[in-house]
Amino acid sequence: MKTRFGKLIAALMLTFVSVGLSACSVAQHTGKLEPLVIQQQGSFAVGGTVLTNPGRFDPFKMTPEGQTLHGDHLYTFYQIPTNARKFPLVMWHGYGQSAKTWETTPDGREGFQNIFLRRDYGVYLIDQPRRGRAGRSTQPVTLTPTPDEQKWFDIFRVGIWPEYFPGVQFAQDPESLEQYFRQMTPDTGPIDIDVNSDAVAALFAKIGPGILVTHSHSGGMGWQTVLKSPNIRAVVSYEPGSGFIFPEGEVPEDMPSSAGTLKASGVPLADFMKLTKIPIVIYYGDNIPDQPSENPGQDNWRVRLAMAKLWADAVNRYGGDATVVHLPEIGIQGNTHFPFSDLNNLEIADLMSDWLAQKGLD
Amino acid sequence: MKTRFGKLIAALMLTFVSVGLSACSVAQHTGKLEPLVIQQQGSFAVGGTVLTNPGRFDPFKMTPEGQTLHGDHLYTFYQIPTNARKFPLVMWHGYGQSAKTWETTPDGREGFQNIFLRRDYGVYLIDQPRRGRAGRSTQPVTLTPTPDEQKWFDIFRVGIWPEYFPGVQFAQDPESLEQYFRQMTPDTGPIDIDVNSDAVAALFAKIGPGILVTHSHSGGMGWQTVLKSPNIRAVVSYEPGSGFIFPEGEVPEDMPSSAGTLKASGVPLADFMKLTKIPIVIYYGDNIPDQPSENPGQDNWRVRLAMAKLWADAVNRYGGDATVVHLPEIGIQGNTHFPFSDLNNLEIADLMSDWLAQKGLD
Repeated sequence: MKTRFGKLIAALMLTFVSVGLSACSVAQHTGKLEPLVIQQQGSFAVGGTVLTNPGRFDPFKMTPEGQTLHGDHLYTFYQIPTNARKFPLVMWHGYGQSAKTWETTPDGREGFQNIFLRRDYGVYLIDQPRRGRAGRSTQPVTLTPTPDEQKWFDIFRVGIWPEYFPGVQFAQDPESLEQYFRQMTPDTGPIDIDVNSDAVAALFAKIGPGILVTHSHSGGMGWQTVLKSPNIRAVVSYEPGSGFIFPEGEVPEDMPSSAGTLKASGVPLADFMKLTKIPIVIYYGDNIPDQPSENPGQDNWRVRLAMAKLWADAVNRYGGDATVVHLPEIGIQGNTHFPFSDLNNLEIADLMSDWLAQKGLD
Repeated sequence: MKTRFGKLIAALMLTFVSVGLSACSVAQHTGKLEPLVIQQQGSFAVGGTVLTNPGRFDPFKMTPEGQTLHGDHLYTFYQIPTNARKFPLVMWHGYGQSAKTWETTPDGREGFQNIFLRRDYGVYLIDQPRRGRAGRSTQPVTLTPTPDEQKWFDIFRVGIWPEYFPGVQFAQDPESLEQYFRQMTPDTGPIDIDVNSDAVAALFAKIGPGILVTHSHSGGMGWQTVLKSPNIRAVVSYEPGSGFIFPEGEVPEDMPSSAGTLKASGVPLADFMKLTKIPIVIYYGDNIPDQPSENPGQDNWRVRLAMAKLWADAVNRYGGDATVVHLPEIGIQGNTHFPFSDLNNLEIADLMSDWLAQKGLD
């Protein structure tokens, strides 16, 4: 456990490192935005599988025989700035989201896509299989419109509906909230962790070494993807949810909360060791209680943060380099479940830039 | 009907106009691509509606009472180059497609997104309501994976499966076909022409005057959108399918084909007149028979092309400015249902650039 003095030192170190920010970052902070200079941009599908009906296709009847369906791929839109840094960033959205997560923020500012393009990183935004533009699924689903946005407002720790948390880093005008709600998009097939991690591993196989940036649900799937891809050179994970994996025999006890019970799972040690070979940083925002709470929207994150700390300890015990940053502990207040699009997202981006620099990954 | 001599004159005129292309366009043709210089890029949702459950939301139980669902909006990703021309292009995909339609082509070349950014147009790509990243729908749907790609290969006039049309403007390697199939994405709710045209009209209300570029199914919805938005200053329509609207009392007879019967519909003359106030150009590709064919994949387009010609005649009879360009008639061979991503898409883009210039819209 960190002492208060330790936290102060950590905060001072971050401040110190921030002094070294590039002119570009300073321009971002002062709001003078130069044009983006993009050497290359485009999109493609990768991964996935093919269903094939038996028989021979008849072009005159167009019956099902002999027809195929390509599905379960991911879709990515990428932009590579001129003079890009060595490792691109692959940004993977969370539950109920698409690549939109990383684009314009709900209140209309630049998101991580633009912020990191301006910092000379190549940026790949993905829609995971069966989500968004990667909608073709090999498995059926029924979509039933279910009003649930007040639940997400709470689970994403914007506040306790209809109240915003005091000092929350989220714009409180109605239009921002509307944009936030409208960026959700449903699954066009069942969520399948193997399908998703296979597709992201296939993306890294195609593009070569890079850095994986995950959020929430993709956090756990991201650990699985590291097991499948040697091209992931680091992971930056915002508020990973379920899916923490430990060496078999070392799985922590279940963690009950008012939002349900969080379970970790075990993998062979040889697999787990892959997570110890790359630097990993995990960020959690504010309004996460340290004692059990009756509010599931918050208690949910109490156990996840606790599990993340145990997980980082396990990785480091085996010689790895995993850090959990609980933002309020370094003096950064008010962040929701979406730190990268919160009002202080440039400060959040600075933390990530600095960390990448510290790890020699820029 | 055009004579052969008339066609020759038309082809010569196009050649003449092409001489005036910008240096940028020449660079595109010779493959020397400079970086894109983007003054602004981002994304947002627009249009749509809200479902609201009665009652009061309980944050501790998170039951359905008092919760909302924002749905039926469109999603757009926009890029504005430095020194952009006055009118941006709003590109609207066709059936089973998303904004991906306008991005990288199946064989990995630049699509209309990049091509027109390089020609200094602002470009808005949309996912229509209940498609892609605009997936939240207020209506339910069941998605059943149905192998159907050989049907689309034929309907999109790539060939007659498994044969490609001779000289088709489509790369014949397996990877290109795979990318082409994987760019399809399903509807996450029923297609609703009013919902869609309302959302696109809302987009134009937000961004101001611009040019609407449609494809296939969005062709007909595009005419409806013109009725709803005075900000649409021109329409460029690639292979519009169903949905041609005529003045009431002047609706052409149904057109039977081996793919089914094409019907037009009537609107009040005052509405129809809105279509006569802006320049409109429609392009159709190759391998469309002029006599009835037993192959539904082709015959489908015979009646659509015929209906488009009747429609342009009606618009022009009322003082409008509508042109139907059947590409083979001006000497451009081999185009599929997706001319803007075909192998000759720079030539197709030149036609559009020239047309916009002729109409004073550049």
